[in-house]
Amino acid sequence: MVVVKYSDVVMLMVVVMVLVVGGGDGGVARELTRHPAVEEVVLCEIDEEVIEACKTHVPSMGCGFSNPKLTLHTGDGAKFLEETQEKFDVIITDASDPVVADEGEEGTKDGPAVSLFNHNYYTDMKNRLEEGGILCCQGENMWLDAKLIVTLVRGCRKIFPVVEYAYTCTPTYTAGQIGFILCATNPDMKLNEPVRVWDQREAAEMGLKYYNADVHRAAFALPTFMSQHLRTD
Amino acid sequence: MVVVKYSDVVMLMVVVMVLVVGGGDGGVARELTRHPAVEEVVLCEIDEEVIEACKTHVPSMGCGFSNPKLTLHTGDGAKFLEETQEKFDVIITDASDPVVADEGEEGTKDGPAVSLFNHNYYTDMKNRLEEGGILCCQGENMWLDAKLIVTLVRGCRKIFPVVEYAYTCTPTYTAGQIGFILCATNPDMKLNEPVRVWDQREAAEMGLKYYNADVHRAAFALPTFMSQHLRTD
Repeated sequence: MVVVKYSDVVMLMVVVMVLVVGGGDGGVARELTRHPAVEEVVLCEIDEEVIEACKTHVPSMGCGFSNPKLTLHTGDGAKFLEETQEKFDVIITDASDPVVADEGEEGTKDGPAVSLFNHNYYTDMKNRLEEGGILCCQGENMWLDAKLIVTLVRGCRKIFPVVEYAYTCTPTYTAGQIGFILCATNPDMKLNEPVRVWDQREAAEMGLKYYNADVHRAAFALPTFMSQHLRTD
Repeated sequence: MVVVKYSDVVMLMVVVMVLVVGGGDGGVARELTRHPAVEEVVLCEIDEEVIEACKTHVPSMGCGFSNPKLTLHTGDGAKFLEETQEKFDVIITDASDPVVADEGEEGTKDGPAVSLFNHNYYTDMKNRLEEGGILCCQGENMWLDAKLIVTLVRGCRKIFPVVEYAYTCTPTYTAGQIGFILCATNPDMKLNEPVRVWDQREAAEMGLKYYNADVHRAAFALPTFMSQHLRTD
């Protein structure tokens, strides 16, 4: 339950309610629940077997499911979003790619996550956001998927007053990089500046091994070719 | 020929003389020769066949060898450095990994580039630098090679007053990321701040598709685990 609006929440670090669509490996849940400001994480994953496999075989990530802050739903995330009456301060989409390999002529076909990469889905997310809420969605890879990223970002600009593209290095993802599409409902929000900067002691207490304020800002420093793809003029 | 010292050169953008050890694909030469301040690039590559293969099959990189600013030597870069009487404003090492796959018990063995990853090599480079000169060397991958990186950086700190570690995303390199070990002979040099920031027109004239000042600064924003590995205390 959210008791104050998001803009107050992030300042006061009181309570934040987060929805994760996907995230079946447990990693996003593990990281979210470290944060004292996060009161509840609702996670909706379509593939029950992924959850069980990660709990058994990748417990370093699967441990995310054992946190008492987590409420787990299994099912179609897009459908969950259409049907839920709840509102969230943050919605995170941690989906697989929209296309999967296929033996046909094209070499690819729509995968189970295709419904998480279209205008309707982003509109549904906006409708389930609290005032001042933000989104962070799987933003593919700028080297491989620039065309899809541009389409998504342009679509988001029609729905949200603030839209940014960011990325980070992740050695196990295609081409070693994953992007994020970030949208804010508050036109004054600067997504590239961390709302909260933790000192060394706080970061250690939370067990943060990767994230820090410098890495946050650096994630928004786009190569020139990508800035040009996403320019608004 | 260098006619003014490096600290003046970078301010005045007059002439810079660069040595590249390795770089047989031509990419580093291609990028260096874009810069009006770079007067001459001396490139020493051990593997003549790599050069010919890239000129023939990867002309987008191999074109770097056709620039009139380039002087090409083929041979052992470490030996070249020991024997040359020339001095350079910048030395770049674009080497392959120090180890290669092996069928033996360890799974790896020393590769041809092993001589470019030790204390002697870094000392030789320092001796061939002009006053105020800088190094930028292949710095492996922080996810896979943290131990080697820490050894190299600690070694460099014994030779140079300024040592930094940076990284960038490169989809074709192991785990999608490559690091840089940067050393400066001038104790006041801030390597994470670009000496020269190009405006859009200048960057377009130089044909820069990736590099810009934001990307330069972001390359130095290390994840917490890597900062901790490299801390000086």
